[in-house]
Amino acid sequence: MADTGTAPGQQTGFLVDFATSPDQYKHWRLSIEGRVARLSLDVQEDQPLIPGYELKLNSYDLGVDIELYDAVQRLRFEHPEVGAVVITSAKDRVFCAGANIKMLGQSGHGFKVNFCKFTNETRNAMEDASANSGQTYICAINGPAAGGGYELALACEHILLIDDGSSTVSLPELPMLAVLPGTGGLTRLVDKRKVRHDHADFLCTTLEGIRGSRALEWRLVDELAPRSNFSQAVAAKASEIAQRSDRPVSAQGIKFTPLKRKMGRDQLRYKNIQIDLDRKLGVANILVKGPSEAPPADVSAIHAAGDSFWPLALARELDDAILHLRLNESEAGTWVFRTHGDSSLVAAYDNILLDNASDWLVREITLYLKRTLKRLDVSSRSLVTLIEPGSCFTGTLLELALAADRCYMLEGTFEDDPDSSDVPAAVRPTGMNFGPLPMVNGLTRLEGRFLGQPDAVDAVRENTGAGLDAQAALELGLVTFIPDDLDWEDEVRLALEERASFSPDALTGMEASLRFGGPETMESKIFGRLSAWQNWIFQRPNASGDQGALQLYGTGAKAQFDKGRV
Amino acid sequence: MADTGTAPGQQTGFLVDFATSPDQYKHWRLSIEGRVARLSLDVQEDQPLIPGYELKLNSYDLGVDIELYDAVQRLRFEHPEVGAVVITSAKDRVFCAGANIKMLGQSGHGFKVNFCKFTNETRNAMEDASANSGQTYICAINGPAAGGGYELALACEHILLIDDGSSTVSLPELPMLAVLPGTGGLTRLVDKRKVRHDHADFLCTTLEGIRGSRALEWRLVDELAPRSNFSQAVAAKASEIAQRSDRPVSAQGIKFTPLKRKMGRDQLRYKNIQIDLDRKLGVANILVKGPSEAPPADVSAIHAAGDSFWPLALARELDDAILHLRLNESEAGTWVFRTHGDSSLVAAYDNILLDNASDWLVREITLYLKRTLKRLDVSSRSLVTLIEPGSCFTGTLLELALAADRCYMLEGTFEDDPDSSDVPAAVRPTGMNFGPLPMVNGLTRLEGRFLGQPDAVDAVRENTGAGLDAQAALELGLVTFIPDDLDWEDEVRLALEERASFSPDALTGMEASLRFGGPETMESKIFGRLSAWQNWIFQRPNASGDQGALQLYGTGAKAQFDKGRV
Repeated sequence: MADTGTAPGQQTGFLVDFATSPDQYKHWRLSIEGRVARLSLDVQEDQPLIPGYELKLNSYDLGVDIELYDAVQRLRFEHPEVGAVVITSAKDRVFCAGANIKMLGQSGHGFKVNFCKFTNETRNAMEDASANSGQTYICAINGPAAGGGYELALACEHILLIDDGSSTVSLPELPMLAVLPGTGGLTRLVDKRKVRHDHADFLCTTLEGIRGSRALEWRLVDELAPRSNFSQAVAAKASEIAQRSDRPVSAQGIKFTPLKRKMGRDQLRYKNIQIDLDRKLGVANILVKGPSEAPPADVSAIHAAGDSFWPLALARELDDAILHLRLNESEAGTWVFRTHGDSSLVAAYDNILLDNASDWLVREITLYLKRTLKRLDVSSRSLVTLIEPGSCFTGTLLELALAADRCYMLEGTFEDDPDSSDVPAAVRPTGMNFGPLPMVNGLTRLEGRFLGQPDAVDAVRENTGAGLDAQAALELGLVTFIPDDLDWEDEVRLALEERASFSPDALTGMEASLRFGGPETMESKIFGRLSAWQNWIFQRPNASGDQGALQLYGTGAKAQFDKGRV
Repeated sequence: MADTGTAPGQQTGFLVDFATSPDQYKHWRLSIEGRVARLSLDVQEDQPLIPGYELKLNSYDLGVDIELYDAVQRLRFEHPEVGAVVITSAKDRVFCAGANIKMLGQSGHGFKVNFCKFTNETRNAMEDASANSGQTYICAINGPAAGGGYELALACEHILLIDDGSSTVSLPELPMLAVLPGTGGLTRLVDKRKVRHDHADFLCTTLEGIRGSRALEWRLVDELAPRSNFSQAVAAKASEIAQRSDRPVSAQGIKFTPLKRKMGRDQLRYKNIQIDLDRKLGVANILVKGPSEAPPADVSAIHAAGDSFWPLALARELDDAILHLRLNESEAGTWVFRTHGDSSLVAAYDNILLDNASDWLVREITLYLKRTLKRLDVSSRSLVTLIEPGSCFTGTLLELALAADRCYMLEGTFEDDPDSSDVPAAVRPTGMNFGPLPMVNGLTRLEGRFLGQPDAVDAVRENTGAGLDAQAALELGLVTFIPDDLDWEDEVRLALEERASFSPDALTGMEASLRFGGPETMESKIFGRLSAWQNWIFQRPNASGDQGALQLYGTGAKAQFDKGRV
């Protein structure tokens, strides 16, 4: 794959599909016993996602990580009884060697960056399950854990390391490949595990890693156990943690049925989302449809509806659509969101989620919406929202407007368009805008929007449930511009054409900087600070040039470094 | 300048000198009237620092910014009476067009990155003066302020914009050059001025900028005044702010005498610092000498000592040394710090600073030490500290050990070395380690070190004033390793050789990630998030390739962009 920055979908005609299910897993084994699930990594060497490398030593590629993501999602929804998840290796004397190096070496810049972003999001999803779902991840390191292998462990809340005199944890990326550990490792060391920076420095520059008591003393792992006692120690810890979970022991999970999608050359259709690509303009037009019927009457009806319950179906479809567009449609640089539907129905669904927030399934659905909107925020695409008559930017869907880099709302109606509604558009806040759906920096999108005028959040809150026309929305600060019928088409077209004329790289850096004013969290630091440095390093000749370490790995040749510090 | 990542010092034999004084200024005019100083930008087109470009429209290069930095420093020390500083333009109908584009286009990657870092530090120094010195910066934008011109304004606490129907503030870097505003602009918009992210997006993608009432409404500026009333409005505001300052109206400033340096091929000598370059190993050996005599008896004696007072002399020399090494010695990738001197004297100087913290000059000296140590933290060099017999890592100088990526302390003495002290080394905390010298993220180095064990900070505090031997320092977590005489030489040499074998880029990204665990501030976001994105963008073909926008600017040719999003 040449280093052009385009993703494999466009370059090879090969589309990466993010949908899978346990019966299709090649690399992970999922087993459940009582309240404890076990995810065992057993990578099939000869089953890489893209030809050209072997997945030796339980190393992973995007295909392996797509399965992990699927398992993490299903455990939450299909297994309410599971209170602890043990991540371990099914292979003897090796835990995981991290991301496959040959795969990285042959990948273009865009693919590498996308791969890291997705693996980061999956590890964040594990931490979200531990923090918010009562499904806590534990890592049983039963052999050497190198690079991404140790980073996988770092995403767990408790790390057991086998104390066999040889198994180590290591982050050898820098000495071996001249790149950073790309999946949050550096940030989790100092921010999550609060490892001292000089200790972290030593770890990250030491090829062979650190074992046993020093790993424990330096906070790199939480517990040691000898080989003879390792399984029992893992089982004991898992059981102890599972007992503390608030998940219901005897509830029935729901089933994730296969996503229904129809893909054309320039189109993608889900039940609730339709996407039309304007390749000339570099735009993906994304239309989100509101619910077509009233929500289920009560919690048991929500459970009975399963994955056809509108908010859950929407989250799954939007999640899949974002992943597809990010990796397979890299030249659609602007995502234009519209909605269509009945605002009162959206509000009714929001309210049923809010009213039943303590139910385990409702909690999961809300958390899934949260994670999906976070995925949107960290996507390297310009986000533009268009609010037109017939739309339903209400509550959860209003977040699509608040997330956008720009939001245009039509003042009035389209007078000459017989297909358009003759009722002006209105946006409507619900309780979902004031807490349940925070960004990666921990703020709601409204809080982030109004850092300079915290009162403005209260002013919006006072309008909860109210339909706000363009003028009111502008005054409350919810939208950027409100052109009328006369100006709308020109103003929107010009904005999109202009956007398409800019350098995609500069837009990515700008958007990543402007979207996250205010405080930072471990999560925001991973996508901001860490990933930005890694992107830079991925682009530097010392790593990715012809004589770079990542490029030459495995050839026996030694990398030649430019010794100048920048 | 070819894009090899090396700085001009090594490439051209041309060393950039950061020392200057008002009588040598070419581009700034400094005038003082009562409590208000005025810094007027009046760039001499034909006086660029490096040949190859003209500094049109009050655009700046490193030479212009070195003068600004000097002025900001001197105002603090030489002019205790100044409570407000007005930044404005001496040219008619132009404020400042920002960093010179042709200069950027002809500069190598390393020079660009270094230039941005220095300009960022200078703007931070202005904000530090406003926040902590009672010397508040005000910007009088008397004509178009574009790019770095507006970013200079953003570093001021109050921005007045002339309301003449044509003067705008703008950040045209993205549409014009395919790069980011590189001097904190994006971060200051959303974090300091708390501009809404959609408004910031519009500003940063709009070539012509924003003027008048919209600029005010969107919080881009603080005040508008028509041309007829502009000078009066500026004077009124400056006077009002100056009156609020706690700086002494009638105190006598001290004089910054020219720095005494001797530079050899591989050596640099100041009074209190000596630097020896080991070019083979890529190491700058930096020896800091403690004071040779007891501190002045009281505040008036400190004032009388002026810039020969040891802490101030040290700050000036260390500041200059860091700037020199960063820009002119890019292949010295590791800075190895040693100290030599009498620990009790260092402690005595620290204590006189602490005891007289309310004196304006003592406050300035402490703030200067703080800023210089911050500059060290954000330097893209590996920092190693070696603590040997005869050293004086006490208080302020102990920060050099805490800032280091690795710290080695000899256990015992060098038994066969007749030149070495036969008293084992000791480190000694003072009050300076517990507050006055925070890092860019707002934490003291001890707080950052012990994020995971806040009690450890208290344990060190209980040892304030005590000399701690290697074993005690290790147990308190102050040093990384304590080899004895037998292992010292091999262990240190191996560490330095290993460091020299790694990719400088990967080290830079790693160190920037590990040094700043915990919270972020606007300042840390500028050096972490923003600068990392900018470095990446500077390296991308869309900006810096043969067909990139930065490269082609001014040629009339249109940049060709790879449209793939990464």
